[in-house]
Amino acid sequence: MTLTQDKNNNNSIGVGLIGTGFMGKCHALAYGSVKAVFGAVPTPRLEVLCDVPSEKASAFADQFGFARSTDTWQDLVVDPAVDIVCITAPNKVHKEMALAALGAGKHVHLEKPMALTIADANELRDAAASAGVKTITGYNYLHNPAITHAHQLIESGAIGRVVHFRGAIDEDYQADPDLAWTWRAMKTEAGLGALGDLGCHLVSIATYLAGPIASLMADMQTIHHTRPVADGGASRAVENEDVASALVTFETGAQGVLTTSRSAWGRKSHIGFEVHGTEGMITFDQERMNELRLYQNRGALAEQGFKTILSGPAHPPYGEFVPAAGHQLGFNDLKVIEVHEFLKAIAEDRLAFPAFADAFHFEDVIHAIAASSRAGTRVSIKG
Amino acid sequence: MTLTQDKNNNNSIGVGLIGTGFMGKCHALAYGSVKAVFGAVPTPRLEVLCDVPSEKASAFADQFGFARSTDTWQDLVVDPAVDIVCITAPNKVHKEMALAALGAGKHVHLEKPMALTIADANELRDAAASAGVKTITGYNYLHNPAITHAHQLIESGAIGRVVHFRGAIDEDYQADPDLAWTWRAMKTEAGLGALGDLGCHLVSIATYLAGPIASLMADMQTIHHTRPVADGGASRAVENEDVASALVTFETGAQGVLTTSRSAWGRKSHIGFEVHGTEGMITFDQERMNELRLYQNRGALAEQGFKTILSGPAHPPYGEFVPAAGHQLGFNDLKVIEVHEFLKAIAEDRLAFPAFADAFHFEDVIHAIAASSRAGTRVSIKG
Amino acid sequence: MTLTQDKNNNNSIGVGLIGTGFMGKCHALAYGSVKAVFGAVPTPRLEVLCDVPSEKASAFADQFGFARSTDTWQDLVVDPAVDIVCITAPNKVHKEMALAALGAGKHVHLEKPMALTIADANELRDAAASAGVKTITGYNYLHNPAITHAHQLIESGAIGRVVHFRGAIDEDYQADPDLAWTWRAMKTEAGLGALGDLGCHLVSIATYLAGPIASLMADMQTIHHTRPVADGGASRAVENEDVASALVTFETGAQGVLTTSRSAWGRKSHIGFEVHGTEGMITFDQERMNELRLYQNRGALAEQGFKTILSGPAHPPYGEFVPAAGHQLGFNDLKVIEVHEFLKAIAEDRLAFPAFADAFHFEDVIHAIAASSRAGTRVSIKG
Amino acid sequence: MTLTQDKNNNNSIGVGLIGTGFMGKCHALAYGSVKAVFGAVPTPRLEVLCDVPSEKASAFADQFGFARSTDTWQDLVVDPAVDIVCITAPNKVHKEMALAALGAGKHVHLEKPMALTIADANELRDAAASAGVKTITGYNYLHNPAITHAHQLIESGAIGRVVHFRGAIDEDYQADPDLAWTWRAMKTEAGLGALGDLGCHLVSIATYLAGPIASLMADMQTIHHTRPVADGGASRAVENEDVASALVTFETGAQGVLTTSRSAWGRKSHIGFEVHGTEGMITFDQERMNELRLYQNRGALAEQGFKTILSGPAHPPYGEFVPAAGHQLGFNDLKVIEVHEFLKAIAEDRLAFPAFADAFHFEDVIHAIAASSRAGTRVSIKG
Repeated sequence: MTLTQDKNNNNSIGVGLIGTGFMGKCHALAYGSVKAVFGAVPTPRLEVLCDVPSEKASAFADQFGFARSTDTWQDLVVDPAVDIVCITAPNKVHKEMALAALGAGKHVHLEKPMALTIADANELRDAAASAGVKTITGYNYLHNPAITHAHQLIESGAIGRVVHFRGAIDEDYQADPDLAWTWRAMKTEAGLGALGDLGCHLVSIATYLAGPIASLMADMQTIHHTRPVADGGASRAVENEDVASALVTFETGAQGVLTTSRSAWGRKSHIGFEVHGTEGMITFDQERMNELRLYQNRGALAEQGFKTILSGPAHPPYGEFVPAAGHQLGFNDLKVIEVHEFLKAIAEDRLAFPAFADAFHFEDVIHAIAASSRAGTRVSIKG
Repeated sequence: MTLTQDKNNNNSIGVGLIGTGFMGKCHALAYGSVKAVFGAVPTPRLEVLCDVPSEKASAFADQFGFARSTDTWQDLVVDPAVDIVCITAPNKVHKEMALAALGAGKHVHLEKPMALTIADANELRDAAASAGVKTITGYNYLHNPAITHAHQLIESGAIGRVVHFRGAIDEDYQADPDLAWTWRAMKTEAGLGALGDLGCHLVSIATYLAGPIASLMADMQTIHHTRPVADGGASRAVENEDVASALVTFETGAQGVLTTSRSAWGRKSHIGFEVHGTEGMITFDQERMNELRLYQNRGALAEQGFKTILSGPAHPPYGEFVPAAGHQLGFNDLKVIEVHEFLKAIAEDRLAFPAFADAFHFEDVIHAIAASSRAGTRVSIKG
Repeated sequence: MTLTQDKNNNNSIGVGLIGTGFMGKCHALAYGSVKAVFGAVPTPRLEVLCDVPSEKASAFADQFGFARSTDTWQDLVVDPAVDIVCITAPNKVHKEMALAALGAGKHVHLEKPMALTIADANELRDAAASAGVKTITGYNYLHNPAITHAHQLIESGAIGRVVHFRGAIDEDYQADPDLAWTWRAMKTEAGLGALGDLGCHLVSIATYLAGPIASLMADMQTIHHTRPVADGGASRAVENEDVASALVTFETGAQGVLTTSRSAWGRKSHIGFEVHGTEGMITFDQERMNELRLYQNRGALAEQGFKTILSGPAHPPYGEFVPAAGHQLGFNDLKVIEVHEFLKAIAEDRLAFPAFADAFHFEDVIHAIAASSRAGTRVSIKG
Repeated sequence: MTLTQDKNNNNSIGVGLIGTGFMGKCHALAYGSVKAVFGAVPTPRLEVLCDVPSEKASAFADQFGFARSTDTWQDLVVDPAVDIVCITAPNKVHKEMALAALGAGKHVHLEKPMALTIADANELRDAAASAGVKTITGYNYLHNPAITHAHQLIESGAIGRVVHFRGAIDEDYQADPDLAWTWRAMKTEAGLGALGDLGCHLVSIATYLAGPIASLMADMQTIHHTRPVADGGASRAVENEDVASALVTFETGAQGVLTTSRSAWGRKSHIGFEVHGTEGMITFDQERMNELRLYQNRGALAEQGFKTILSGPAHPPYGEFVPAAGHQLGFNDLKVIEVHEFLKAIAEDRLAFPAFADAFHFEDVIHAIAASSRAGTRVSIKG
């Protein structure tokens, strides 16, 4: 595939987007603004938007600025004007869509989790490896400049050797016992529950900062075993878990603790972690996503303490959005950075991060957590 | 002026933008995404971008997605395809540009401060009143859903009668004594210093939450009296102040304290305020712009405390950006909300907020602070 | 044993204290001030202080206000004037001293952990049960009014049914790789490492708030395997662990995660926990020991958030120390409350909390954590 | 006066305490524990406690451990066994008691404010200067190790030259409009309202950290003009102010803002301040009294941020209370440090801090704030 030239003789690249929900809108906004934010990228052409029914697709195409719309994703993935296929449809159709897009020679931008089972994720990884195109997955929190800076601090030895990692990712969207039963409660629709919705994000951060995970022991639990059916007096079973926790061992030998809940009242987007090093510690909470906390065993003891570092131009690519520190990026900005990474990877013919191969490990770990919990024993990550 | 129809028979509206710096980019991003975010607004057509030299204008037009570019703002303001003129050029040329745009019958989106002197701001206010078009000013922090919610809480009596207001707005961009002299140090270029850059934002919030200010006593101070000239050994005088503080009395009789510094080490975008009421208190800090803190004298004493409310869909229009609470808006999102307010006001033929007439009061107050400080006496706000 | 009358015809009670270190001083201060703080308790008579050598004992007796001193603890425990024996000597001698004191018919105030092994703790528990005296253990954090209030909130249903518990207790006193080897590194002297120093405190809080623990899976790790010997070039092995983590299941069926580190840079007295309920959440951090955070799914969504409750007279017995909220208790005040609990229990002839029987469970859990980690399997708590 | 020898041949010193309320108890606890905490001080002998009626005095003498009690303060101040007279009675009798104690040749430990008027404070200052004894005033917050450390950091140049100071001291004990009228509302009983209760503490900190105040402009306000009389339907006038604010100029030329409210809902012991320097900033809040925040313009920009320093043994005399950092001192511990300062000053025959002469400046400033507010003009501090 080659990039086409736009009217200003700039490179441009055609985008097809499947889905118009939470993540669909987020993708639309990101592809629509990435050029204005970053400048030095191919210009995305918003070509085709897919949703059902067609009226919905058409209305959102108008809103999001797509040239055309369709209610048939199979048409979108083979559309000649489309170079990148963005998949934000429900998780259970990710695999079919992504395989079709890869098969059509399109670059694929796939929301997380890649698939409901690790076997399916593996099939996608293999398909991507042989497709000769670029892939990226929607592990958007990795693109927070504060997280990137944490990664760089660790790489540079700012906290010495990493010896321990703690992380929790929690929300409260399933905390209310009276909430009606939905597809989220079905294994065949939603997969692993909190692990699939949230836990895989935490694993992505843990491995970005502390390296791949080698083995783990885990527990998980469904808190609300049934939920009322919206239109009747009956209740229906919840098939997946609300909470999961794991004791992990990284390949480096460091240990860690990962835990997640979708029923944690008061948590709206809590992704808290601590990286313990031999010379310091780094902590973070996504609910204050523009702050990184750093402790270093340096200087006079009387002046040691956790430093709260506000994101700013010193933490690229923050400065592409705002030239002044402390003014803050938002959730949607992270997707813009993700899209920038993808466009640059395509333009430079290199792997994007995190590609399908990277995301496979994240999802391998969450399935291992589920397996360990069911078996009651330690599980090794095969990779 | 009437809105034109775009290819989908939607209303559209032509935008001309003067300036490509911090605020110029912010405007470009906002007009480029407001339709995708909000849906139900006229579609902005990015028609003309102006900067000097023309190569710069052309390059940024490409980056920002404007159809044309120019190095002559006088052409932009009379361009037939332009319905809205956005002015983000240096403060000292605001007046001339805005008068020309109003004279050409254009809606005007003007960055703050409107002008370097209150006489000039007054002239702009009068011109806007008679121009038969809509105006809005770039007091973007007012559009933070958390601030809007604070306003609504106060209006609804959640903290009783407002009896006191405290506010500070601080940054550290002029804190370093060794920083080179720039135009920011000149009265004729930058006007009032910290008051003009920052203080007027604080006044906009104070009056939004506690009503207009009636009188005040103030002090101000230049901390670094000279600064090195970049290309030589000499130093040059700093003509405006780094710090200003005022004891204010609101029209309601409530008192307050406002203070600002552009030399406050560690403050990157600190806009902290407290609204004291007879039944509670609200506090906020822009450096954690997605958090509002509320104390109410309600319920058991043993359970009273400041509640940290994370912005979410319950605080419109947050939900237009992200459907989940706690995921966070960023600085640039506030401008999108400001643009939405402007487009809606134009479509509904009503005053936008804050229009020139609103902003006049904000700037009246900062000039009164300067006047009080020079005179050493209390100054009344005439309005 | 009967309480003696002091010169004002008040009840008084004789105290003998073994040890003058961190906890020894803390006990001395607490017994010295409990009457002044609480009023309605028997007056402690500070009778005998024991340490070695005798000069040290004598000097501290003078400083702490004890009437006599000795270098022979065996004398202290049988001293007729002593009603309460406080044991703050090194952990490895706790058992011998406590058994002797119980044997002499004294009430015993024993620092945690009770013993180095669970067998020894069990022996102490049994001895206490048959001794006909009162016992209390130094799980001082349980006496924080904020924790007591958390307990009461949970009991009253303020957060619904407890479904999950997270806790971490961390300090950094063994974080520095260059720190010299000490007795803390020896199993025979210090026992379990972080679990014994810190972890048992966390278990005490977890079970106080979420009930007894039924089973667990755990991992632990020594980060610094050797340490330099202070007076030579050689290094010596560290026999116990720096970090331990466990996935626990409470008797209620709720799950939880407990973790501890003595090598966590920047943590000085971090005891952080979250209690997840079906209707809310409570969180706390001992480094801000006068703050409790409470989220309840009540009232308008737009006003929901974590409330930060500052300890005050509404949280007994805070008001015995200071009659105004928010003024703050300190670490040493917790021991005063513990002593008050002990004196009241003696006066009222009831069990104190936490008595040896309570503490046995806390320590049973930390030994189970160690056992599970070594075996790599789930371990049930027998009790 | 010479110190007497106790039974162990240590120096001891006789203490007489007037008052058994909030501060009375605080003094009793402090004199009762200072020797145990610090060791190297003369041993206080708790000789006489005074309150009315005599039964109350007797009961509290028993509780606090005083040897004798009286209902006649005139007897206490001339009691031969009393070397130090502690005055914690209502503010309006401070002057008479302190003059009598000075006249009797006693060291005087006087709670703040020294007097209701600056003329009375001046008379006390003069009397102390000629009495040949030591004095100290109850500005206890100055003795917080975190504040002491802030002072030392500033002295050492850690934040460069101090150029600005901001401070607020707020509580909510008069926030409720329905609170019954008390003596606190009377000028002749309580003096200046919030300024006298709270504001003088803030001035003590401001001048400790930024030097004496040279002049100021101020405003103050009564929020609740009447209050219900407890036992009837009528209401009675509030004669003093709830809120006061001042723009101050320090002798160094630096400016600052001081503000106080006794009607600030949610504030329980808020003493927040910022010290702005040319190379950094220090901030603090008494509601988190064991934390000091420090920003320094040092090192890589990407790692700059406010450091939260937890009080510990590196901040003397914290280590006298607890040998481990982060474990926290409480409000009552500050009085112990104050008493230690006084005992050392007596033993070393030097001025204590803050003596009457120091406190005079603090109180001079609050009266100047009131005077400026009434006059509407700038007021100079004569000293």
